[in-house]
Amino acid sequence: MSQFEQETAVRPLPAKGSPNEILGRFSTDLTDAWNIAGNPNGGYALASTLRAVASLAPDHPDPVSVTTHYLRPSQAGQPAEIEVEVVRHGRRTSTLRSMMSQEGKSRITSLITMTDLGQWPPDRYLDIPPMLLPDPESCVDRSLLPQGVELPILSRVDVRLDPATIEPGASDQALIAGWIRFADGTEPSVMSLPLFADAFPPSPLSLLGRVGWIPTVELTVHIRAHPKPGWIRACFRARDIGGGMLVEDGLLWDSSDALVAQSRQLALFVTG
Amino acid sequence: MSQFEQETAVRPLPAKGSPNEILGRFSTDLTDAWNIAGNPNGGYALASTLRAVASLAPDHPDPVSVTTHYLRPSQAGQPAEIEVEVVRHGRRTSTLRSMMSQEGKSRITSLITMTDLGQWPPDRYLDIPPMLLPDPESCVDRSLLPQGVELPILSRVDVRLDPATIEPGASDQALIAGWIRFADGTEPSVMSLPLFADAFPPSPLSLLGRVGWIPTVELTVHIRAHPKPGWIRACFRARDIGGGMLVEDGLLWDSSDALVAQSRQLALFVTG
Repeated sequence: MSQFEQETAVRPLPAKGSPNEILGRFSTDLTDAWNIAGNPNGGYALASTLRAVASLAPDHPDPVSVTTHYLRPSQAGQPAEIEVEVVRHGRRTSTLRSMMSQEGKSRITSLITMTDLGQWPPDRYLDIPPMLLPDPESCVDRSLLPQGVELPILSRVDVRLDPATIEPGASDQALIAGWIRFADGTEPSVMSLPLFADAFPPSPLSLLGRVGWIPTVELTVHIRAHPKPGWIRACFRARDIGGGMLVEDGLLWDSSDALVAQSRQLALFVTG
Repeated sequence: MSQFEQETAVRPLPAKGSPNEILGRFSTDLTDAWNIAGNPNGGYALASTLRAVASLAPDHPDPVSVTTHYLRPSQAGQPAEIEVEVVRHGRRTSTLRSMMSQEGKSRITSLITMTDLGQWPPDRYLDIPPMLLPDPESCVDRSLLPQGVELPILSRVDVRLDPATIEPGASDQALIAGWIRFADGTEPSVMSLPLFADAFPPSPLSLLGRVGWIPTVELTVHIRAHPKPGWIRACFRARDIGGGMLVEDGLLWDSSDALVAQSRQLALFVTG
């Protein structure tokens, strides 16, 4: 079993739902192996929710729209409880909402539509050119980038950054690009794409130089295809920064150059 | 009182929440004045939810992140019930989730973060150039565009479309742009922006010619500023169509050229 599967596993708890809804309860353990500074990475903390949700939508195994609001930081080493409600089970999609709590406090709430990506016709129109990047070997290992925080998560994911996008303050764009894969050789899956969409340094780095903590308020990931084995190539760009927040868009391609996910997040961003 | 306020008003119902959460219940009436074909427009159906949510977050009057999943079509002329749960009330933001039901069936579920946009510093970095459009007078009134469906909503909003973006099948982009305002002269507000982000014809029109119903699965709107009085200028572009779905991005500017909202929706799109 991969590190990702093992460290995001959920166990069902006795249900306590009302009769007109399908409500599941699960427990999970968040390890500190995916921490950024002192707290679990948001994409990692979300992954166990995705597993709990998927277990209640057996004929719709693939998340296609995943919105998560981060209410309070998650805590590594503390048990977590996840409540999942099936709000609609349809023929083509299922919609579920969830709440992950620790120590009785809500931490992460999600609204998720699941589908079976394989049931849809494979035609595709894309008005998004694939991004060109230097090979992973010519990119900078994220662990070598000075960021002023401990990054235990780099024991779990291997992140290589395009050197052109990490020169602090050297660009007029808030753009970061690079490659990501699991450190233990596990191939990417639809379940890993929300994590991969939240595991890069913040994109304002190249525009503004050193940036502080940019906590995610809300992250939405649209998963468009099953990724082929190999590296995931991604870029993140904040085109709208101000008013104490930023909107950052992400694009993720697989090794066959298929666009496998799009992401957008709203994050708090207070300078000065 | 404006048509928009009047026709999205909510009335509190007795609460039935558990003690550890703040749960409000509301009733509302959806009129058929905002219909597209036989059902209320999704942005309109969402507006009463926004009012219910705002009434439970009095110190955070402005929606900043609004995600809505459309579970089943709403019905005009039927009473609706909206349940709202405050999942976190913080100093700078409040997060709420809601469920709108009719005839005992869930129709719309939302996850919303509210703030007070006025509390944040006004600095802004934008890497999104304002879009140039012909004046509203030189654009095409949406009511004159043959679309094959009745559009009662055009009694409530005035939509003018850039002629260059509505020639069916004449473009290699799925792009539609134009102007929108309330028909009764009401000025735009943050509460109206999600509606305005969902009131244009589908963007694949210019790429593919005639398109059928493209039901929204999920719509997320980020509201970035209070709009100034006057027309709202907007463009919508689907850059990722296929696999039975499309992802369409929207940008909305006010009359002072400020980017007031960004939107993204996932919609079902099955051709042939």
